[in-house]
Amino acid sequence: MRNLTMMTDLYELTMMNGYWHFGMQDQRAVFDLFYRKQGETTAHAVAAGLEQAIDYIRNLRFTPEDIAYLGSLGVFEQGFLNTLADFRFTGDVDAVPEGTVVFPDEPILRVNAPIMQAQLVETALLNIINHQTLIATKARRVVQAAQGDAVLEFGLRRAQGPDAGIYGARAAIIGGCTATSNVMTGVLFGIPVRGTHAHSWVMSFPSELEAFRAYAKVFPEGCLLLVDTYDTLKSGVPNAIKVFHELRASGQEPAGIRLDSGDIAYLSRTARRMLDEAGFPNARIVASGDLDEEVIWDLKAQGAAINTWGVGTRLITSQDNPALGGVYKLAAQEVNGEMQPCIKISDNPAKVTNPGIKKVLRIYNKADGMAIADLIALEEESFDPTKPLTIFDPENTWKRMTLTDYTMRNLLEPVFRNGELVYQLPDLDSITAYAQRDLDTFWEEYKRLRRPHIYKVDLSDGLYALKQRLLSENSR
Amino acid sequence: MRNLTMMTDLYELTMMNGYWHFGMQDQRAVFDLFYRKQGETTAHAVAAGLEQAIDYIRNLRFTPEDIAYLGSLGVFEQGFLNTLADFRFTGDVDAVPEGTVVFPDEPILRVNAPIMQAQLVETALLNIINHQTLIATKARRVVQAAQGDAVLEFGLRRAQGPDAGIYGARAAIIGGCTATSNVMTGVLFGIPVRGTHAHSWVMSFPSELEAFRAYAKVFPEGCLLLVDTYDTLKSGVPNAIKVFHELRASGQEPAGIRLDSGDIAYLSRTARRMLDEAGFPNARIVASGDLDEEVIWDLKAQGAAINTWGVGTRLITSQDNPALGGVYKLAAQEVNGEMQPCIKISDNPAKVTNPGIKKVLRIYNKADGMAIADLIALEEESFDPTKPLTIFDPENTWKRMTLTDYTMRNLLEPVFRNGELVYQLPDLDSITAYAQRDLDTFWEEYKRLRRPHIYKVDLSDGLYALKQRLLSENSR
Repeated sequence: MRNLTMMTDLYELTMMNGYWHFGMQDQRAVFDLFYRKQGETTAHAVAAGLEQAIDYIRNLRFTPEDIAYLGSLGVFEQGFLNTLADFRFTGDVDAVPEGTVVFPDEPILRVNAPIMQAQLVETALLNIINHQTLIATKARRVVQAAQGDAVLEFGLRRAQGPDAGIYGARAAIIGGCTATSNVMTGVLFGIPVRGTHAHSWVMSFPSELEAFRAYAKVFPEGCLLLVDTYDTLKSGVPNAIKVFHELRASGQEPAGIRLDSGDIAYLSRTARRMLDEAGFPNARIVASGDLDEEVIWDLKAQGAAINTWGVGTRLITSQDNPALGGVYKLAAQEVNGEMQPCIKISDNPAKVTNPGIKKVLRIYNKADGMAIADLIALEEESFDPTKPLTIFDPENTWKRMTLTDYTMRNLLEPVFRNGELVYQLPDLDSITAYAQRDLDTFWEEYKRLRRPHIYKVDLSDGLYALKQRLLSENSR
Repeated sequence: MRNLTMMTDLYELTMMNGYWHFGMQDQRAVFDLFYRKQGETTAHAVAAGLEQAIDYIRNLRFTPEDIAYLGSLGVFEQGFLNTLADFRFTGDVDAVPEGTVVFPDEPILRVNAPIMQAQLVETALLNIINHQTLIATKARRVVQAAQGDAVLEFGLRRAQGPDAGIYGARAAIIGGCTATSNVMTGVLFGIPVRGTHAHSWVMSFPSELEAFRAYAKVFPEGCLLLVDTYDTLKSGVPNAIKVFHELRASGQEPAGIRLDSGDIAYLSRTARRMLDEAGFPNARIVASGDLDEEVIWDLKAQGAAINTWGVGTRLITSQDNPALGGVYKLAAQEVNGEMQPCIKISDNPAKVTNPGIKKVLRIYNKADGMAIADLIALEEESFDPTKPLTIFDPENTWKRMTLTDYTMRNLLEPVFRNGELVYQLPDLDSITAYAQRDLDTFWEEYKRLRRPHIYKVDLSDGLYALKQRLLSENSR
C-alpha cells in the first residue's frame, strides 16, 4: 500500500501549523464529504472508493524525508514539524458502504477528529472518493443503457494516468461492469479480465484468414475474432466463419466476433444473420469503439445485435462530466469543550451547508421494500418507525408527505473509532452484489438516463430548525 | 519507482502468447504513438510524460506472483509463461522531448522492438503519454489566456485518482503553470508549492478578523488571506486591510488576498481599489474557483484586477476534452528478415495511418527562427537545407510551397537503443524552459485559443509516394 500522506494541498499543512501554533490542534472538528447537484448525470451517484480511503488513512505517516522536505520550504515552525513524526489518525470516520446509491448534499463520508487531522485528510479523501464515485456512477449509466447486456471496461489507455485506469476499472465494476481489460486491476481485486487481439495481430500475418487461423490455433477455447481490420462484411465475418467451421471440426465452439468501427447497428445485424445462417447462433457479437450510454441506448433502439459492449474512453474519463465535484465542509467544531454546529453561508443558496453532526436515513415502503425518500437528520434525533412521519421539501416547505408503513436505514456506518478500523471491508464481489441490491430498491423513474424523476432528499425537523436558526443568526 | 508491468490490456498478453507460439516473438515491429485531430483544443499539443514512460520501460519485470496470476487465468500456454520471467525490453525507442509542441498524426514516440515487447508496452505508454500530454496542453491554454499572469495548479481534490493529481500537476508545470498546491508533486519533482488557508480556517475562529490575525501571526511572511468566507467587500477585504496594517506596523509587507467566489471581475476591481487606497498597491489578488481558459480570457477582457489564477478542476481533468485520444499503430514489421512498411486502411480517411519508419522534421525560417511547417518523412530520406524544398498539402496536393532559407530539426530523439537508456533525462526546470522556447517559435496565429490558424503538417515526397502505393495495393 502506498503512503499518500504528502498527497495533500499545501494549505492543509499551513492550517495545521496554525492550529498547532494556537494550541488548537486537538479541538475536534466534524467535516462532511458530499457532492452538490450538477446536471442530470449525477442526479444520483454510486458511492465508491472507501476501501482506498481507508488504506490512505491507515497509512498516514510522515517519513523523516517528508518532514525534511517540509522544513526546506521555509514556511513551517520547527515545533510543528517535530510533531509530524508521531502524527497518526486518532479520529472517527463514518461512511456509506461502497455501492450505495447516494444523492446530492448527503454526507458520503464524515470525519470527526482533532482538527489538525481532520484538515490534513481533506484533499486525499476528496481525490479518492470523487474519482471512484464518478466512475462507478458513469458505469452504472452505461450498464443501464445496455439493458442486461454485459459491459466490459476497456479504457486503460485513455485513463488519466495509471491510478485512473486501475481504480477506475475497480469503480466500473462497482457500477456494474462485468469485467475489465486491465490486468493489474484483475490482479489487485480479483476482477475478471477480458481481451483477445487487436488490429496489429491481423496485420502481422500475410492475410486476415491466416491471422484468424493462427489465433484460433493458440486459443481454441473462447476464440473471439476482431473482424474489422480490412472489410467487416466482405472479409472479416466470412473469414471468421471459415475459421469457426474449422474450430468446430476440431471439437471447439467459437466465442464470437468483435466489431470496433463502422456502423455498429447495421454491421451487427448483418453479421448476426451471417453467423446464424452459417450455423453459429451462439457466437456472440462484441462491440467497441467510442461507446457511451447515449450511443448504446440509441444503437439498441435501432436493433443492434450486440451481446457485449466494450466501453473505453468515455467511461474511464466520464467524458461528459469528468469531475464529481465533491466537497468537504466543516459541520461542527469544539468550542470550550462542546461541539457546536457550523454553517457555511453563501450568496448561492445551493452552497449553504447543512450544519451539525448528521446522519442519512433512507426510508423504505414496508410493503414492497422500495425507497421512498431520504432524510438528512441530526445524529441525536431519534425516529420511531411505528409512528407516522411527516417529511417536507426543505425549499418548498408546503410540500409535505406523511408516511406510515415504513422502515428506516442509516446509510452511514462506523468505519474508524479513535483511529482504529472498526469496519469489516467487504470483498469486491460482495460490494457489487450489494450495489445491485441497493439500486433495485429504486423505482425505474428515478434511474431514467434522461430527465429522471427527482428523488426526495429532505431535512429532518431538527436539522431544518437548526439551519434556519444559524442562517438568521448569521445574517447580522 | 512502481512496477507497472501488469498495467496492460489482457489482449497484449494473449497476442504475445500468440507470437511466441508461432516463433514470431523476435520479429521486429515498429509502432508509432500519435494522436488524431479532434476539435480545436488539441489543434496542437505539448508533449509530456516521457520521463514516466521511460521509468515504466526500465521497470518492466514480471514477478513470480504476476506469472502465477496469469497462469491462474487458464488462458496462456505454460511455455509462454516461462519466458516471462526473463522478459526485458531490448528494443529502441525514439521520442520528442517533453515540452515539444506537436501536431496531430506526428509520432510523439516510436517503438522499434521484437513484436512481443513492442506489443506489451502499448497500453501503458498510451496511458502515460495520453494523460500528461493532455494536461500539459490544457495548462498551456490556460496559461495563454492568463496573458502573463501566474497560473497555479490547484486541482488535486478533483483529479481522477492520485496519479492524475500527482502527474497531472507535473504536466501542468510543463504546460506553463508556475506552481501547484500538490505537496507530493513538490516532493517528487522539486516544483514550487503554494497555498495558505481555506474557509474552514476562518470558520474555526470566533470571527473573520481573529482568523486573519491568527494567520498573520503564524505566517507573517507571504501572508495571503482568503476574503470571501462571509462577505468579500463588506467584511473580508476590510478585515484583511486591518490585519495588513498591523503586519506592516510589525515590519512585514502582506502578500495579498484570494477571491474564491462571486463575480471575480467586479470584486477584484473593487478590492484592488480598496487595497490601493489603503496603501497596499503591491498586495496581490489571487482568483480561484471554477476557472478555465475561457473564463480567464473573458474576465481579463472585463478588466479583472487579478495577478494570479489558481485553476483546479477544469485544468486537472481537462474538463472540455478529458482524453487526448492517442493511438499506437503498427508502421513497419519484419518479414523474412527485412523491415516492411505497414498501413492500416480505414473507410475514414483520417484513420488511414502513415506507413514506414518515420521521422518528424520541423522547418524553421532561417531569418527569424520561426517554425514554418512540419514534414513527416521516412527515416531514410535525407534533405539538404542548402537547396530549395517544395512541400505540399497531402490532402490537396496542388497547395505547394517552395522554401529556400530554412533550417530543419528532427523532433524525434533516441531514447532507448537495444534496451539501454541513451537519453539524458532533463530536470523539470530544463523541460519547462525548453517548452517555453519551443512555443515561442510559433506565431501567435497558430496559438490562438479559438479557431487558430492551422499549422502545416505535410508528408515528404517519399512518404507520400509510399502511402499512395500501399493504398492502391490494398484496394484489391
